[in-house]
Amino acid sequence: MIGYAFMGAAHSQGWRTAGRVFDLPRDPVMSVICGRNATAVRTAADRHGWASTETDWRALIERDDVDLVDICTPGDSHAEIALAALAAGKHVLCEKPLANTVAEAETMTAAAEAAYRNGRLAMVGFNYRRVPATALARSMVAEGRLGALRHVRVAYLQDWLVDPEFPLTWRLKKELAGSGSLGDLGAHIVDLAQYLTGERLAGVSALTETFVRERPLPGGPTSGLSAVSANGTGQVTVDDAAVFTGRFTSGALASFEATRYATGRKNALRIELNGSRGSLAFDLERLNELAYHDGTEPGEHAGFRRILVTEPEHPYLEAWWPPGHGLGYEHTFVHQVRDLVHAIDEGRRPEPSFADGLQVQRVLAAVEESAEKNSVYTPIAV
Amino acid sequence: MIGYAFMGAAHSQGWRTAGRVFDLPRDPVMSVICGRNATAVRTAADRHGWASTETDWRALIERDDVDLVDICTPGDSHAEIALAALAAGKHVLCEKPLANTVAEAETMTAAAEAAYRNGRLAMVGFNYRRVPATALARSMVAEGRLGALRHVRVAYLQDWLVDPEFPLTWRLKKELAGSGSLGDLGAHIVDLAQYLTGERLAGVSALTETFVRERPLPGGPTSGLSAVSANGTGQVTVDDAAVFTGRFTSGALASFEATRYATGRKNALRIELNGSRGSLAFDLERLNELAYHDGTEPGEHAGFRRILVTEPEHPYLEAWWPPGHGLGYEHTFVHQVRDLVHAIDEGRRPEPSFADGLQVQRVLAAVEESAEKNSVYTPIAV
Amino acid sequence: MIGYAFMGAAHSQGWRTAGRVFDLPRDPVMSVICGRNATAVRTAADRHGWASTETDWRALIERDDVDLVDICTPGDSHAEIALAALAAGKHVLCEKPLANTVAEAETMTAAAEAAYRNGRLAMVGFNYRRVPATALARSMVAEGRLGALRHVRVAYLQDWLVDPEFPLTWRLKKELAGSGSLGDLGAHIVDLAQYLTGERLAGVSALTETFVRERPLPGGPTSGLSAVSANGTGQVTVDDAAVFTGRFTSGALASFEATRYATGRKNALRIELNGSRGSLAFDLERLNELAYHDGTEPGEHAGFRRILVTEPEHPYLEAWWPPGHGLGYEHTFVHQVRDLVHAIDEGRRPEPSFADGLQVQRVLAAVEESAEKNSVYTPIAV
Amino acid sequence: MIGYAFMGAAHSQGWRTAGRVFDLPRDPVMSVICGRNATAVRTAADRHGWASTETDWRALIERDDVDLVDICTPGDSHAEIALAALAAGKHVLCEKPLANTVAEAETMTAAAEAAYRNGRLAMVGFNYRRVPATALARSMVAEGRLGALRHVRVAYLQDWLVDPEFPLTWRLKKELAGSGSLGDLGAHIVDLAQYLTGERLAGVSALTETFVRERPLPGGPTSGLSAVSANGTGQVTVDDAAVFTGRFTSGALASFEATRYATGRKNALRIELNGSRGSLAFDLERLNELAYHDGTEPGEHAGFRRILVTEPEHPYLEAWWPPGHGLGYEHTFVHQVRDLVHAIDEGRRPEPSFADGLQVQRVLAAVEESAEKNSVYTPIAV
Repeated sequence: MIGYAFMGAAHSQGWRTAGRVFDLPRDPVMSVICGRNATAVRTAADRHGWASTETDWRALIERDDVDLVDICTPGDSHAEIALAALAAGKHVLCEKPLANTVAEAETMTAAAEAAYRNGRLAMVGFNYRRVPATALARSMVAEGRLGALRHVRVAYLQDWLVDPEFPLTWRLKKELAGSGSLGDLGAHIVDLAQYLTGERLAGVSALTETFVRERPLPGGPTSGLSAVSANGTGQVTVDDAAVFTGRFTSGALASFEATRYATGRKNALRIELNGSRGSLAFDLERLNELAYHDGTEPGEHAGFRRILVTEPEHPYLEAWWPPGHGLGYEHTFVHQVRDLVHAIDEGRRPEPSFADGLQVQRVLAAVEESAEKNSVYTPIAV
Repeated sequence: MIGYAFMGAAHSQGWRTAGRVFDLPRDPVMSVICGRNATAVRTAADRHGWASTETDWRALIERDDVDLVDICTPGDSHAEIALAALAAGKHVLCEKPLANTVAEAETMTAAAEAAYRNGRLAMVGFNYRRVPATALARSMVAEGRLGALRHVRVAYLQDWLVDPEFPLTWRLKKELAGSGSLGDLGAHIVDLAQYLTGERLAGVSALTETFVRERPLPGGPTSGLSAVSANGTGQVTVDDAAVFTGRFTSGALASFEATRYATGRKNALRIELNGSRGSLAFDLERLNELAYHDGTEPGEHAGFRRILVTEPEHPYLEAWWPPGHGLGYEHTFVHQVRDLVHAIDEGRRPEPSFADGLQVQRVLAAVEESAEKNSVYTPIAV
Repeated sequence: MIGYAFMGAAHSQGWRTAGRVFDLPRDPVMSVICGRNATAVRTAADRHGWASTETDWRALIERDDVDLVDICTPGDSHAEIALAALAAGKHVLCEKPLANTVAEAETMTAAAEAAYRNGRLAMVGFNYRRVPATALARSMVAEGRLGALRHVRVAYLQDWLVDPEFPLTWRLKKELAGSGSLGDLGAHIVDLAQYLTGERLAGVSALTETFVRERPLPGGPTSGLSAVSANGTGQVTVDDAAVFTGRFTSGALASFEATRYATGRKNALRIELNGSRGSLAFDLERLNELAYHDGTEPGEHAGFRRILVTEPEHPYLEAWWPPGHGLGYEHTFVHQVRDLVHAIDEGRRPEPSFADGLQVQRVLAAVEESAEKNSVYTPIAV
Repeated sequence: MIGYAFMGAAHSQGWRTAGRVFDLPRDPVMSVICGRNATAVRTAADRHGWASTETDWRALIERDDVDLVDICTPGDSHAEIALAALAAGKHVLCEKPLANTVAEAETMTAAAEAAYRNGRLAMVGFNYRRVPATALARSMVAEGRLGALRHVRVAYLQDWLVDPEFPLTWRLKKELAGSGSLGDLGAHIVDLAQYLTGERLAGVSALTETFVRERPLPGGPTSGLSAVSANGTGQVTVDDAAVFTGRFTSGALASFEATRYATGRKNALRIELNGSRGSLAFDLERLNELAYHDGTEPGEHAGFRRILVTEPEHPYLEAWWPPGHGLGYEHTFVHQVRDLVHAIDEGRRPEPSFADGLQVQRVLAAVEESAEKNSVYTPIAV
């Protein structure tokens, strides 16, 4: 694994736990973790249970005891590492967003395709597909329970930037993060909406905004970030929020919102699908629940029902606790490992593939293009 | 009162009840109700408690015992009746939308302004301003509890058109209804969003859609509606749904959705406001509740609180029941009468004024223009 | 109508509105309202729309233009008035609780039975049977949707006595109110639980408590209430709260709670029924909703559904507004009038009858007896 | 660790994860797991990550590489194992209920007290104290935020016995399980209520019931369970459900319910506390949330707030994920290990102690006694 911050910790939980809970065809071995700071990576290895460390990701990729490379670094390094890892004959799990640009994502997708022909697999880490409730929603859509899709309503609401004194972290600099709410939160909801519906977005119309354009520097004026103003602040160069509408290929209308300024909403990824035969609704803040309205029931007794997605017949639940004993955020990473290990064992393409990640990048690029061009409706390149 | 269908019944409840519950400076007398069908209007008068009937609205307007004309007809006749009533020296309460076109609304607004100088008042019936929870929300925003506004998230979701066999009523014909979800539901949410925020929309970017373009005729092929196809169906000529984004004058981002295809959502007018100091959320399906997040509280104990808006200190509640004994939809019309009677007694402009109604029409016109022009961002005329 | 306080206002709304909304076989005429203070009752008559007034209820009962007497006085006068009204050949609607003692209720029930043989009807005002959601729940239970009943869980939670400085009103004096939370709130939930289940309680085990035993006198030390202490306070002589368990005749277990000390709960009458085939749950603070779990559905898609009880096929809704346009507390009184007028027209016993009211009194008496006897299980007299 | 079923798996997650997430003063080593079936325990060791196995718990206790014994067996063996382990100088973590009888629990508590003087610690596994939301609730009560306690309302609702064809497992036989819902679910809610309030129950009045008294044998008529009837069924000898009321030492009223027959409720441990200054409410089915009503706020803006207990300043959250990224059921076991390891390191008594477990047993015994004695109020022995 390369990277050991928030995502590194979460992925480590996944690697450490999957084989303890699920019957896996192969046992993951946590060989080596890599980071630039030798002391810090040593501490992370001890904490998270990795057997050894490297400080140069190229060294990690060359090791014979590494079959799979898990990339948990910021987006600007995804392409370089993933391409090298695939070239070295490793399987790759790459955190989202796949890359900071469409061009990088295209190269990565081509490389993944070539690697697949050599028996190497590549997957992108859209972990919210692995919440039992979203996986159940996907299967219900696939069974036709919603009928013809009419509306997709999605928002990913956080609030950690509301305070204008919150410092200018790397996530607020375009050269490092690629984009702001859009790439971070927007990538998740675009992928999830397309996954759940089984459809692709055909085009979008977008508005983006940066509400607080200047913020204090994290380490003061000498921190090395560009565009430092005299008073120890720097420019925010990414979007704070994005709202966009769109059409799915079937003609359904969609609305999306990604923001870090929704005061009081901590991690509210909400999605609702309305179809001619039924509706589904989900909120990540209550991740063990799925709301379902069966539109074919007589009106007298119909209503949105709250399915507690903790029954043994629900996705991933066969291995966990009795009904009503809920799971949490980190379990998505356990499930991700389980699915990836099965895919590797069976030699089949894991989902979401790099091609899926590329398509999400294309949507995000269209969102940015529309926002720059007066919100004009912008088709998604195929 | 002119018109006696759904809105006529609701307004009658308002006129009949307001003086029984509130201390009004003047006692409304329900003199006369007007409708084209003499038998039907007689039945309606008996049912709803009107003293007499007319079949020609011009006759009603000329009566000396009429001080105020309440217009509950479809939108295509609002302008003509309102102008005549104002010219005849009557106060006017006009159902929303103010008119079917911006031009009509402008004429009406000018007439209202002239009438005001003669002591006659005109009000438009955006009754959702009179839910105690929305009135409370407005006062909390005005007190500065939200700080700088960042996001406005609004949807008005109904589902009565999901069934493609639902017949082609007048509401689905452009020549009668003006527009579809947009004019009916969209007018409400545009007004409510502007009212609650105390701001105006500066511009919008929109998508509209008609999902089911042909529907069975209500009375079969001879019903007289135009564009009848051979098999007894006719064209739907209004929008089924509209999604649009926009900017408020302060720079806040907004997203709007109006639809009659949200399976399982019956009357879900939902609005959420996020500001730098707090947030508010409301859902008409739970109209006695207002959710409030105070962003200035310490994070450890902060959270969205559910205010049950039934305390005596809440708007309109001084006259109703003890705490927790909720009100319903029709009470908005009682409150509307109360506020209008007070305004007349005090000779001050009631809100929402025709000018407010006009401004909503301008937003809706910009939505339609944007939808026609590839969703391009369209400023709202001032 | 006799009495014109809170219940008088609510009942007046019912009498005034029922014929405006429902097709009634007979038109109620609001002839006369009675109260001891001539000025106050005159004001009430004007406010609520009664044609004339009386200051002596015996005079009201003797009037020929009175066919039905609606008793909205405190419980200590119910028996005397009801017996006189029935003897005078009037129909009677009596507010709950039917009486302050079982003996009074027995006499009233016998009188009601005798009157019925003479074509005069008597009904007790348990208005919460007339919430559309509870009426729907009753019909679902009667259809067998719950199967064998296992659990009944009921609470009626208010909080208006939390403040120890709240004054000693008549409701806190045993000689006037009969009992405290038990007679006021407990009567409602015992009736509702028995109505919804279609079963009777067989026995109870109870605890009661008075948390604040001394309170300031409303008008100071000269207000005339007994037991005035030197410092201007008086004794609370009723229960503040009651909790009790019980068995229904079918063997189902029940738990009940009635309190005015549930800080933050304003009017939370909550009831949940669990049966072998399904469950139902209701909360008066969200009175337009009924939660239903169909236990016969496959576990994968099962869950409590939120039925919005606003569809035209729901009880009482045929006459009101479109789906999702909710009703409020006072509508229960409109429905009560509707049902009573139909019963009178058809000459059939209205429900709940005085016999139903008597049975509730017997349950409350058993609760008090159990609480006095160390909570021992106390059977309900039949 | 002794035992490897449901609780064994959950505890293993705790032992394996605590040191990976929290900074522990000592590193737990998962040395040995014990079970009677050699093959099965070997499989469990591999699955859950234990280094070795034993088939005789006495052998495990004698091992020098064992410092702490974690007892996850059914309740009938808790006393014997715990006493032996403490005698052998081991720390002990014992699953709840502490024992099947008060006498056993008393002996265990005395042994724990003696062991404490020798530096050995004993803790009982009431894991629901370690949900961040309940831990937060405890600290809010301790801060005085509720004022004088008035009501405690607790229910633990499951539904896995609704189907009468569900087989007669060991949990339904008194000789093995001690009791039914009462010992399993009731023990949790009695402990949690006493923990949250910081008070003890003074007395109880109870009803218990066994709804389905005969059930099919799990393995058919030869399964060896006693009381086999001719048709392959056996007697249920424990309670299916218990409802009881009580008084806390402060005078607050309590109501409790434990059942496995609440159709549609999967793991609904709900507790609400009402005090003179505020209220708290919790539901285990939404374990990342705590509802709080601050009764000292002005009524106009007051309401139950939903605290999302995922902030870094919340209990246990400093080590987990960003706000809004919820935890699940198993995390309570991770927190239990963390707290126990800290207690051992610091040599202080862990909570809940065996004395706490004993007190819960006394409450349960009083519940059973009251249920046998016609629900008479039964004081809790001190």
